[in-house]
Amino acid sequence: MNKFTMFGKMTAHPGKREELTSLLLEASRSLNNMESCELYIINESVDDPDVIWVTELWRDAEAHADSLKNEEVLAVIQRAKPLIAAVEPVRLRPVGGKGLGV
Amino acid sequence: MNKFTMFGKMTAHPGKREELTSLLLEASRSLNNMESCELYIINESVDDPDVIWVTELWRDAEAHADSLKNEEVLAVIQRAKPLIAAVEPVRLRPVGGKGLGV
Repeated sequence: MNKFTMFGKMTAHPGKREELTSLLLEASRSLNNMESCELYIINESVDDPDVIWVTELWRDAEAHADSLKNEEVLAVIQRAKPLIAAVEPVRLRPVGGKGLGV
Repeated sequence: MNKFTMFGKMTAHPGKREELTSLLLEASRSLNNMESCELYIINESVDDPDVIWVTELWRDAEAHADSLKNEEVLAVIQRAKPLIAAVEPVRLRPVGGKGLGV
């Protein structure tokens, strides 16, 4: 299995999380037709009012890299940048479990 | 939507990640029949050889709390404890995206 998971921790500038969440939800809609993207879930931190974590699951690391060349995705990234204070990516290799769909 | 997501970062004692991964995979099988558990994916860090991140998605926070009273789950936790150096839970509220299945 070559699947690729990324957790993206994003810290919004104070008061900007809601706006950032909306943008990411918009981005996720452009992924609906991209078969190689299996999960793209936007989560708000319960404990930190500025933090969002995105759960991404891709067919493989190449599919993820390719998505970053997609024009719609790039356009959203450009609009999101001014809202973001920090990004911390966590690169993962999913090994199994419930809901992975191998 | 009251769904509940938890990312669990676990740092295994050096050389113990593989054993811990096996135990968590075993735990995930006991969740297969638990409808309130929608995702329980075990991921190994690409960048840190001792780190595992578990992606959990539950119907609600209560379902997650209830699972921690399940005897099979508790038995696995007891066996996993000696392998684990540190745990860092991240509590999240999923707001939308691809694959969430609302």
